Amino acid sequence: MEEIRTAKSCKQARLAIQDTLDVVGGKWKLVLISVLRHGPRKFNELSREIHISPRILSKELQELESHGLVSRTVCNTKPVTVEYALTEYSETLSEVVMSMHQWGVKHRQRIMELV
Amino acid sequence: MEEIRTAKSCKQARLAIQDTLDVVGGKWKLVLISVLRHGPRKFNELSREIHISPRILSKELQELESHGLVSRTVCNTKPVTVEYALTEYSETLSEVVMSMHQWGVKHRQRIMELV
Repeated sequence: MEEIRTAKSCKQARLAIQDTLDVVGGKWKLVLISVLRHGPRKFNELSREIHISPRILSKELQELESHGLVSRTVCNTKPVTVEYALTEYSETLSEVVMSMHQWGVKHRQRIMELV
Repeated sequence: MEEIRTAKSCKQARLAIQDTLDVVGGKWKLVLISVLRHGPRKFNELSREIHISPRILSKELQELESHGLVSRTVCNTKPVTVEYALTEYSETLSEVVMSMHQWGVKHRQRIMELV
């Protein structure tokens, strides 16, 4: 019985993490969210800041938008520019972003100590 | 001055997250860690449980081992089996794993409510 419960909770945890990765997995999405936490950005600013090609950036932003995590505003400038910002819903990802930020800092420190 | 500080902290956050993704990014590593949190597993058990091909599983486990997150033990059975377990260092990823688990659960609930 205990074993069945463990197997079930193990599967539930795995599926929940896979759900999260389906939405914000990959090389760029959490990086984009992390940058946008510091304020809205124009498309070109993001592309330069993160060193990501316009084609991939466009796709990543579109996917974040489709999940309600990023909003897209067309600005009435000449030439037209497009600004991206985080939505309120994206704040639910704060703990994910913060924990990854903190782990990255600590992991780098650990490597420096080992060298 | 404020702007420079913000730009600097934005870049630091981005790089820290990229460091984390370099180690546990991709489709499988956090899933594997999540499963191994429920106890050590033989190679074949992992492959079946996660529906991942032996070739990819082997590569992912090797990378996790090289970062000190997973240990590999050859068991003196016939035929020889190999068991994988989390290391003590992998516990530093608890918050990352837990926050992704919780977000996945909540995101699924949200989608169910929207449908």
